[in-house]
Amino acid sequence: MTTASPAAAVAITPEALLEHWQGHRRLTRRLIEAFPEDQLFTYSIGGMRPFGILVMEMLTIAAPMLHGVLTGEWNASWDHEELPKDEILRQWDQSTEDINRMWAQMPAEQFQEHVVAFGQYPGKVYEQLLYAIDNEIHHRGQGYVYLRALGIEPPAFYER
Amino acid sequence: MTTASPAAAVAITPEALLEHWQGHRRLTRRLIEAFPEDQLFTYSIGGMRPFGILVMEMLTIAAPMLHGVLTGEWNASWDHEELPKDEILRQWDQSTEDINRMWAQMPAEQFQEHVVAFGQYPGKVYEQLLYAIDNEIHHRGQGYVYLRALGIEPPAFYER
Repeated sequence: MTTASPAAAVAITPEALLEHWQGHRRLTRRLIEAFPEDQLFTYSIGGMRPFGILVMEMLTIAAPMLHGVLTGEWNASWDHEELPKDEILRQWDQSTEDINRMWAQMPAEQFQEHVVAFGQYPGKVYEQLLYAIDNEIHHRGQGYVYLRALGIEPPAFYER
Repeated sequence: MTTASPAAAVAITPEALLEHWQGHRRLTRRLIEAFPEDQLFTYSIGGMRPFGILVMEMLTIAAPMLHGVLTGEWNASWDHEELPKDEILRQWDQSTEDINRMWAQMPAEQFQEHVVAFGQYPGKVYEQLLYAIDNEIHHRGQGYVYLRALGIEPPAFYER
């Protein structure tokens, strides 16, 4: 276990990283809202997964990642259910609250600790959190193309 | 101008943020290599910009962002040239070196300073850098869909 010294240089504080993530999660929520419900689990380009499955993956990674870091329990299921859009949004909002609550419980030193996320992916806690955020941005970018191909104007990328 | 106190909690250090960015930039470089040259500035889905234009945008943001932060000079051009792939890769590698060199010159306190990037976008330096990274991930995600739609297997997202 490696921990940063208290005098380590700061690019991003824990508070700033949380706000950054929740800003992205607000944008992704707007994409879910904009996505036609009847295409959520069916529409695909190039054999890629439908947007609804990608969103379920985001939900499976986000709060469960923090739960795992805090408790050492990693128990996410990778079988993604096909849920109605309002239930997805309800789970999204629940995740938002869960992330805020767990983030407040995490000691600052923990960001530099080494963990094996979901029992499979080794890395420091901040790397795991960045991976969760990047995976969301990556798959949301895919959702932008799906929306455009469906003739729907997506929400602005720079608005959080 | 706001600066973090030396004892501020650290989620991500400057070194870690640079490594995170360059890891993403290595992945984007592999996507550029994988993209068929004759489709780079022509292929589009849903009226979105071709991948080559998005890559030129990334180049226009990345090193010029750091140059602006360090010098206060913001002079990026938003008219994106259509260049041959080998010239794009050459500019990409030059940017990699430029970013490493400028990053080493940046005092740690500067990450918390407020700037108006490119004379238009206000925010703290770390927010500007995260925006550059996020914009790259977002548009690269778009490139993944283009590649799949062209029948080409993209490089693995988790390999950096």
